Amino acid sequence: MKIERRPSTLFYPCPVVLVTSVDEKGTPNIVTLGWAGVVCSDPPTIGLGIRPNRHSYGLIEQSKEFVVNIPSLSILKETDYCGRVSGRDHNKFEETKLTPEPALKVKAPLIKECPVNLECVLQQTVKVGSHNLFLGRIVAVHVEQALLDANGHIDYAKAKPFVYNQGEYWGVNVKLDVS
Amino acid sequence: MKIERRPSTLFYPCPVVLVTSVDEKGTPNIVTLGWAGVVCSDPPTIGLGIRPNRHSYGLIEQSKEFVVNIPSLSILKETDYCGRVSGRDHNKFEETKLTPEPALKVKAPLIKECPVNLECVLQQTVKVGSHNLFLGRIVAVHVEQALLDANGHIDYAKAKPFVYNQGEYWGVNVKLDVS
Repeated sequence: MKIERRPSTLFYPCPVVLVTSVDEKGTPNIVTLGWAGVVCSDPPTIGLGIRPNRHSYGLIEQSKEFVVNIPSLSILKETDYCGRVSGRDHNKFEETKLTPEPALKVKAPLIKECPVNLECVLQQTVKVGSHNLFLGRIVAVHVEQALLDANGHIDYAKAKPFVYNQGEYWGVNVKLDVS
Repeated sequence: MKIERRPSTLFYPCPVVLVTSVDEKGTPNIVTLGWAGVVCSDPPTIGLGIRPNRHSYGLIEQSKEFVVNIPSLSILKETDYCGRVSGRDHNKFEETKLTPEPALKVKAPLIKECPVNLECVLQQTVKVGSHNLFLGRIVAVHVEQALLDANGHIDYAKAKPFVYNQGEYWGVNVKLDVS
């Protein structure tokens, strides 16, 4: 039997990404976001729902660039930490020991430990409410070669992605048979 | 070692939802979308990336309403089917035997077999490219009581959600320990 609940964002499963950006001096920050996803294939475009008071919001608004880094299970703790503290008073790269690497087309760094990095250039900011939506065009893609199968597809059994909802992380572990 | 790839939507994990809408006569349709997600908590808002040539695009554009229905593993085949055929020449409710139920605040139906249904009213359409983005405000939420734990949270071990990427469905099966 179903019950009615007050309107809320009871949507699942949500992805988890580490978004990197830089300030005017080039100091990088990391923020963990669950409200992120693809919105368009041509041009390849990603949307990020983010509160204006987040430190990364201002960095992305000013630099007009960001990188979406997709974590693996091996950096679950670091991923969680980067969502709990602010880049205003924490150097998250130093504290987590995640490794910044230069991107090709944007100033924001890639996170080496993430097997996929999507370099993005901000195209639009859509005002929504408590959160606004950054739409970023993907301008470069990096992928860990060891994760690719013979077809050039990512093997999720190796990539070990996870989702985040209701304060819980859940692993994406089992390939399903549709036939 | 990482390799560079041409810019594309190499983003994962993506959710899978069944979006219902109705035509002017009230005939309901279902479309399976992977490019969907939360963008804002207040007002609670969902974004859908969808091609303008999809039948459901026109239905949502005209009716300005839709329902996001979150499937469970038990209807994986039906979910896959609703992404493969068009409502222009298929009655997907009849063909899949999924059950439409009246919503509270919109004309589009809930899918009974989906444990969570989010009724949405279209607020904005953002032009992006091959796909545009529908932003819908969640106006009513329905959830299967049997899935809720003592805290009123969804137990994903019971809800059995799944994700879709690269033509593959993967189960969200294991709760992860961050501590």
